[in-house]
Amino acid sequence: MDLVTFGETLLRLSPPGQERLERATELEFRAAGAESNVAVNAGRLGADTAWLSKLPDSPLGRKVTATLRAQGTEPDVAWSEAGRQGTYYLEHAGEPRGTNVVYDRADAAVTTATPDELATGRIDEADYFYTSGITPALSETLAATTAELLERATEAGTTTALDVNYRAKLWEHEEARDVLETLFPDVDVLVTAERDAEHVLAREGSAGEIGRDLAAEFGFETVVVTRGAEGALAVHDEEVYEQPAFEADTHDAIGTGDAFVGGFLARRVEGGDVPDALAWGAATAALKRTMPGDTALVTREEVEDVLAGDGAAINR
Amino acid sequence: MDLVTFGETLLRLSPPGQERLERATELEFRAAGAESNVAVNAGRLGADTAWLSKLPDSPLGRKVTATLRAQGTEPDVAWSEAGRQGTYYLEHAGEPRGTNVVYDRADAAVTTATPDELATGRIDEADYFYTSGITPALSETLAATTAELLERATEAGTTTALDVNYRAKLWEHEEARDVLETLFPDVDVLVTAERDAEHVLAREGSAGEIGRDLAAEFGFETVVVTRGAEGALAVHDEEVYEQPAFEADTHDAIGTGDAFVGGFLARRVEGGDVPDALAWGAATAALKRTMPGDTALVTREEVEDVLAGDGAAINR
Amino acid sequence: MDLVTFGETLLRLSPPGQERLERATELEFRAAGAESNVAVNAGRLGADTAWLSKLPDSPLGRKVTATLRAQGTEPDVAWSEAGRQGTYYLEHAGEPRGTNVVYDRADAAVTTATPDELATGRIDEADYFYTSGITPALSETLAATTAELLERATEAGTTTALDVNYRAKLWEHEEARDVLETLFPDVDVLVTAERDAEHVLAREGSAGEIGRDLAAEFGFETVVVTRGAEGALAVHDEEVYEQPAFEADTHDAIGTGDAFVGGFLARRVEGGDVPDALAWGAATAALKRTMPGDTALVTREEVEDVLAGDGAAINR
Amino acid sequence: MDLVTFGETLLRLSPPGQERLERATELEFRAAGAESNVAVNAGRLGADTAWLSKLPDSPLGRKVTATLRAQGTEPDVAWSEAGRQGTYYLEHAGEPRGTNVVYDRADAAVTTATPDELATGRIDEADYFYTSGITPALSETLAATTAELLERATEAGTTTALDVNYRAKLWEHEEARDVLETLFPDVDVLVTAERDAEHVLAREGSAGEIGRDLAAEFGFETVVVTRGAEGALAVHDEEVYEQPAFEADTHDAIGTGDAFVGGFLARRVEGGDVPDALAWGAATAALKRTMPGDTALVTREEVEDVLAGDGAAINR
Amino acid sequence: MDLVTFGETLLRLSPPGQERLERATELEFRAAGAESNVAVNAGRLGADTAWLSKLPDSPLGRKVTATLRAQGTEPDVAWSEAGRQGTYYLEHAGEPRGTNVVYDRADAAVTTATPDELATGRIDEADYFYTSGITPALSETLAATTAELLERATEAGTTTALDVNYRAKLWEHEEARDVLETLFPDVDVLVTAERDAEHVLAREGSAGEIGRDLAAEFGFETVVVTRGAEGALAVHDEEVYEQPAFEADTHDAIGTGDAFVGGFLARRVEGGDVPDALAWGAATAALKRTMPGDTALVTREEVEDVLAGDGAAINR
Amino acid sequence: MDLVTFGETLLRLSPPGQERLERATELEFRAAGAESNVAVNAGRLGADTAWLSKLPDSPLGRKVTATLRAQGTEPDVAWSEAGRQGTYYLEHAGEPRGTNVVYDRADAAVTTATPDELATGRIDEADYFYTSGITPALSETLAATTAELLERATEAGTTTALDVNYRAKLWEHEEARDVLETLFPDVDVLVTAERDAEHVLAREGSAGEIGRDLAAEFGFETVVVTRGAEGALAVHDEEVYEQPAFEADTHDAIGTGDAFVGGFLARRVEGGDVPDALAWGAATAALKRTMPGDTALVTREEVEDVLAGDGAAINR
Repeated sequence: MDLVTFGETLLRLSPPGQERLERATELEFRAAGAESNVAVNAGRLGADTAWLSKLPDSPLGRKVTATLRAQGTEPDVAWSEAGRQGTYYLEHAGEPRGTNVVYDRADAAVTTATPDELATGRIDEADYFYTSGITPALSETLAATTAELLERATEAGTTTALDVNYRAKLWEHEEARDVLETLFPDVDVLVTAERDAEHVLAREGSAGEIGRDLAAEFGFETVVVTRGAEGALAVHDEEVYEQPAFEADTHDAIGTGDAFVGGFLARRVEGGDVPDALAWGAATAALKRTMPGDTALVTREEVEDVLAGDGAAINR
Repeated sequence: MDLVTFGETLLRLSPPGQERLERATELEFRAAGAESNVAVNAGRLGADTAWLSKLPDSPLGRKVTATLRAQGTEPDVAWSEAGRQGTYYLEHAGEPRGTNVVYDRADAAVTTATPDELATGRIDEADYFYTSGITPALSETLAATTAELLERATEAGTTTALDVNYRAKLWEHEEARDVLETLFPDVDVLVTAERDAEHVLAREGSAGEIGRDLAAEFGFETVVVTRGAEGALAVHDEEVYEQPAFEADTHDAIGTGDAFVGGFLARRVEGGDVPDALAWGAATAALKRTMPGDTALVTREEVEDVLAGDGAAINR
Repeated sequence: MDLVTFGETLLRLSPPGQERLERATELEFRAAGAESNVAVNAGRLGADTAWLSKLPDSPLGRKVTATLRAQGTEPDVAWSEAGRQGTYYLEHAGEPRGTNVVYDRADAAVTTATPDELATGRIDEADYFYTSGITPALSETLAATTAELLERATEAGTTTALDVNYRAKLWEHEEARDVLETLFPDVDVLVTAERDAEHVLAREGSAGEIGRDLAAEFGFETVVVTRGAEGALAVHDEEVYEQPAFEADTHDAIGTGDAFVGGFLARRVEGGDVPDALAWGAATAALKRTMPGDTALVTREEVEDVLAGDGAAINR
Repeated sequence: MDLVTFGETLLRLSPPGQERLERATELEFRAAGAESNVAVNAGRLGADTAWLSKLPDSPLGRKVTATLRAQGTEPDVAWSEAGRQGTYYLEHAGEPRGTNVVYDRADAAVTTATPDELATGRIDEADYFYTSGITPALSETLAATTAELLERATEAGTTTALDVNYRAKLWEHEEARDVLETLFPDVDVLVTAERDAEHVLAREGSAGEIGRDLAAEFGFETVVVTRGAEGALAVHDEEVYEQPAFEADTHDAIGTGDAFVGGFLARRVEGGDVPDALAWGAATAALKRTMPGDTALVTREEVEDVLAGDGAAINR
Repeated sequence: MDLVTFGETLLRLSPPGQERLERATELEFRAAGAESNVAVNAGRLGADTAWLSKLPDSPLGRKVTATLRAQGTEPDVAWSEAGRQGTYYLEHAGEPRGTNVVYDRADAAVTTATPDELATGRIDEADYFYTSGITPALSETLAATTAELLERATEAGTTTALDVNYRAKLWEHEEARDVLETLFPDVDVLVTAERDAEHVLAREGSAGEIGRDLAAEFGFETVVVTRGAEGALAVHDEEVYEQPAFEADTHDAIGTGDAFVGGFLARRVEGGDVPDALAWGAATAALKRTMPGDTALVTREEVEDVLAGDGAAINR
Repeated sequence: MDLVTFGETLLRLSPPGQERLERATELEFRAAGAESNVAVNAGRLGADTAWLSKLPDSPLGRKVTATLRAQGTEPDVAWSEAGRQGTYYLEHAGEPRGTNVVYDRADAAVTTATPDELATGRIDEADYFYTSGITPALSETLAATTAELLERATEAGTTTALDVNYRAKLWEHEEARDVLETLFPDVDVLVTAERDAEHVLAREGSAGEIGRDLAAEFGFETVVVTRGAEGALAVHDEEVYEQPAFEADTHDAIGTGDAFVGGFLARRVEGGDVPDALAWGAATAALKRTMPGDTALVTREEVEDVLAGDGAAINR
């Protein structure tokens, strides 16, 4: 296994177009979650990936595993008689309304997941282990489990990656910082949006300075700071590498960050250096924005075409 | 107000046709619940109806009220910051699979509803108050609230009606019997499916005998026993009234029982006698089976046409 | 031209499945009318057909002509600046509700159509001219126009066919009889449902007796009496020919009668005798019932397979 | 009641996406009209609203009332055996085609509505009465009824508001001006698009000058001039208040003007001053543009977020 | 691996409901093939399954693998630069039209598949290897490959199963018989519809006699004869075991036979005896008929409920 | 006939929105091809048009003719027992993915079309004959047939038009140039995208120079060079006429070039001069971009409105 991820995957229910939930009579039905998104995205580019979690033994839980398998990632889950299948409702909208997420994820089966239930052996044998700051936000049990898994991965020599992925509807800035900072000693690669670095991690300065500060303070092997339309940068071995964003005609912005991480890790896993991985992350993220759903259902060739600047408005 | 009902209304998510949840990519999105169904059904036939409940203050809770208002019933709800919006997933299927309901209603806002939060004044002023055996099954708080509301209605001189409506996925037979029997002293009109009378209320004998027994033991003004394709009967003032079912080309059987009750109560409210109300119940139930969704979105004229035996295969 | 028809074609708006109009949020959008249905149905089986009418010069009128052309019939219409495009709303339902038609066809452009506006030359050159009892029901102008066109066809030596096609939502039995009987002298082939023969044309006796009576009284060359599941019969040259209905697993019954007529006329046009034409009518009608929409979008080969008793549940 | 409105509400039939009617096989099915839109929009922000009209007693008329009730406005209608349900077909398109409306509203039931049929008592007791220039354009009867209702409102001390809302497919500039000017003496709040002020009301000068001129000539308490992307202004007590438009990523522009009026009146009704009401109007209008349908199905909180400049691209 | 299958999987394009292809504007998009259906069906019941084939390296080929993985079977395919992705168009219809398949599978990539391209090692290690009579019908290369794979399986001690699965649109009776009979020496379990046994394999007599004859002539370990609504029987060790069909309310009959085989093999693989496996086959087949698509997307528990006679019309 | 065209028309299968084929569960189903698009587009503006081709005698072939007839063009086809119906899958996407076409058109029936099978008499009697560079790319037979038809048209005095329409997925630049240059002697009007002129025809210089060069070298009556957003120009009688593009809010860019040609030829056919025809081409092209599908389903009035600069964002 090149990459193993751990976290919650939710059912996603969204009205067609930009209709409101109150008026909708049908909903798109997908499954998505930061950590399975990253596994799928990396898997599409060639990495051998698995996703660990805990799901209710029901048609709803099976909808999640079917979705992930269809996209090429191996779900390895603890099936539970107790606990719900988390869901979220998504209303797409542009300015000034903004896309809105209504979480209905309380008491999900995964919130009680402990390491002994999970296929942790896969982590030991993987090159990379990834999870996000969403996972420890979901329950105290999950915060403890996340810490244990990161520690275990570190002990096994598996490189660990964590995306801060702050969710304002789950916790407050300070609480997030406190919990995440306890995890940082076992994190090798930190990914953070610039605004999360500022508001959650309480950093100041340019994105490069923030990256250097974080790397210095916590000893991260790599810090990736994503900056939306302004691109991303990485601090690695005290060097700062910048990567502009590729222009994208945005169809659906949900999942852009996970596409970046998936592209980045897929390239790292196969030996790409940091600047190269940043470019793969940026290309994968731009492709994601052209399609619905939370994942970048792309091919390696499509990423390479973006990197090469190829591609026409119509390919025929 | 002619009729006030109290209970939980759920969001209903169902795959198109007979597709399975695991493979579905879109879901029909409706709202339904036994007590609001009855209010809607009676309202369509002319009764002035309201539905009491507690809902989360969210787009999901508002979807419920919008749906009920559209169908002509006034929702009067306590809006809550805490608690979920209950949902259920519905897979339609014929024999031998059978239609399957997957409940996701744990911790719904309504499960904490207490009488002081509810518009109980409406019950006092109503002719009829209706709830079902589903409500006390949802939480201890709701069992207590149901008891209090029935007691209050009785004190206010409002006729009370209860449908046993046993749900095997919510509780066991014995538990249901124990709880329901504590409610019976404040119930004037009991509605029960024949199989619930047998398995939950532990009655034996013919449907007529069961009705008589129940009426005798608990002093119900009226006992209605529904028997699916075999029709229904009522015991009232020691008389047994039988009503055959109207033939129906079934499109969706969900909600048939609530349609029967809605038709029955609508007719009782406006002064119909028991046999007449049984006929209205049976006609409304037959019409319900011709349409999707949980409610009988019919007109009074359509019910009258069924009663009169009018109606052609194509009306043009 | 083998067959020219004249009448109104409506836009048809129907909720999906058996949903009610009140609750529908999308409608199927088709175009249909008895006379264009017959032209389409006959055209599918090889007849060269045209449909005459008057339509508003608008996207709605063009929707009608596009629909007919797609199905292989040539619309030859007077485009009008005045008058509406007739529409109807259709709620499909089984027993006891029944499929319901809500007409919204008042003041349609066609209601003012006079012979001088129409491509009447096509009638002169056709083998058959067909219209239905719906047309004279729509306006006094159309009643006059229908009479003139039938007269003109007769003078030109074109065989004329009329389907009684009584619509209770358009006129009363007596009014219909009075108007239709003024048309009968110029009608060669009369088609009537058995119930219309009884209620509208005030005939009694068996279907065969009714057919003979009508043929005798009005001098029809042929009288076809359709009897739903019991088949059809024709009286021709004082002989009675009976044709059972082919069994059909009914998906949508709308248009069955027009399919029968289309199949019958298609076969007559190419020289089939009356029993043969009855069989083609019955086969086309049975095929129609297996598909949505008002027309039998079939091939000649499919009709022949029905006649030969071929056909499996799955053909692969 | 805070606000009562009077006018026609149409069924709205539109192809999905930007498909053409000629090629569409299904249509979105909604109900909309300027005056009910305003009632809905104001109601969403907290106003207690009702809508008066006349509708055919049919599934089509009931579709209208169901739609309005679902969105929180009370329809109080005269049900009619005669007259049609007005409809319109809507083809969405960008430049250079432009969105196109095909009206099919001739002979709607509402065109014969007289004051004695309507629930005029609601007007007397309301704070505000609103109608638009579309209503008197529909028939002479409606022009007279509109005049009577405005007069009645004035006599009852109800503040009256009128939006010019010129529709080129209904009448000519001069005719509109003549009719509307006879209504102005009973109008307190005039709303007009700048282009309508110029072309219909034949005004010249800047928007502010136009507002002052109109206020001076007709004695309006308030004149609101809307200017599309350039915002709006109001003249009140001889002061001119300007309000820029909020930026909006437009999904569907239909109904923007009604959203502005709904927001403006909702705020006036609860005591907001004119500049404050202009801001609420602008925010509601911007939110409307992010969603399909003719109404701003928003919450008060969402409007406040726009006013506060809050809101992210994705809220989670 | 419990079961490995080999064959072609097609993209399946079908109009909604019973619409005709000529008039359809959208198509359902699935993937299906006899051998992958069997793998999926067996996999759902607990068998560890893989499917071998050759696919074009394109989004179309990837649609096939995504579909199979979602349903729990591992596709192990040779990706090809040459050759098409086979497709078929499916028009659902009842009597007298019948469901119709339009194949568009000429020159599919799989038609050139040779053993050296395929993951034949999986066959060696599997308990069962399954293919159908469709595969050798597709090309001479595939006929040779099928023969080689069966021979290889036999040599490796893998039990082999073959379903005659005659397709009239692919080849003639005689040609099919000639080719299939050359394969029989390496087949352990033969499955045949009774009508294929009669028409293709030219057998006469009762189903039991046919089974015995075939077993005797070709030395099959087991012969399964399926008889539609009349159930199935198996001849094994000279015994005849009969299994009636379970009653089913049929939603979609396509794939019933593959569901039978999948259920039968799943049970054999885990040690069930022949009568037990027949029952599992029959139950799985009945469940299949209640859902759309070619596969029985069921759970083991659902099959057990059918076998136990459990199950209600509505489970809640 | 004003215009006859010859070429292949494909079935077009595309996922909704910008979904990927791998994840799509339904596909839009249309029919399109350069030459039938041009016929449809010109026909919409008033030209009398026909399209010649060869199609399989199947529901798929009939889908093609139904689609064209619905849009107003007469298909005159050779029905074939052999050969496939060509299809293509279309994934819409913006930058950087780009819209992608997956052809599945190998061995289409049309690839074997010879002049003797086609209704070549229609070419003789037409004013214009049009085909594109796609046709000779499809097979050697079609290259020969294209040459013969152009020659025949020339001999009959029919003006010939050819659009280079280079498709990189069909052939290489050099091969295309070689084949096309053999056709040029019989071409009167050459249409080429500027990039095709450069890469395929190996021209250099400004668009005007390219046009002049081509006209001079091959003796074209007219050369039209299309330049996307920069408009188009024509060289005619040694004059260069420039036409800017009309601004368009693009909904679907597919078919823009064919809309240009259709508008251009429609105007030439009715006697418009070259600059006038260029303007009609540009207006038709801009309108095309506002709608889905490959054709400009417009009216002559809509084109005239664009030319006049009329048109509002909302027309009501």
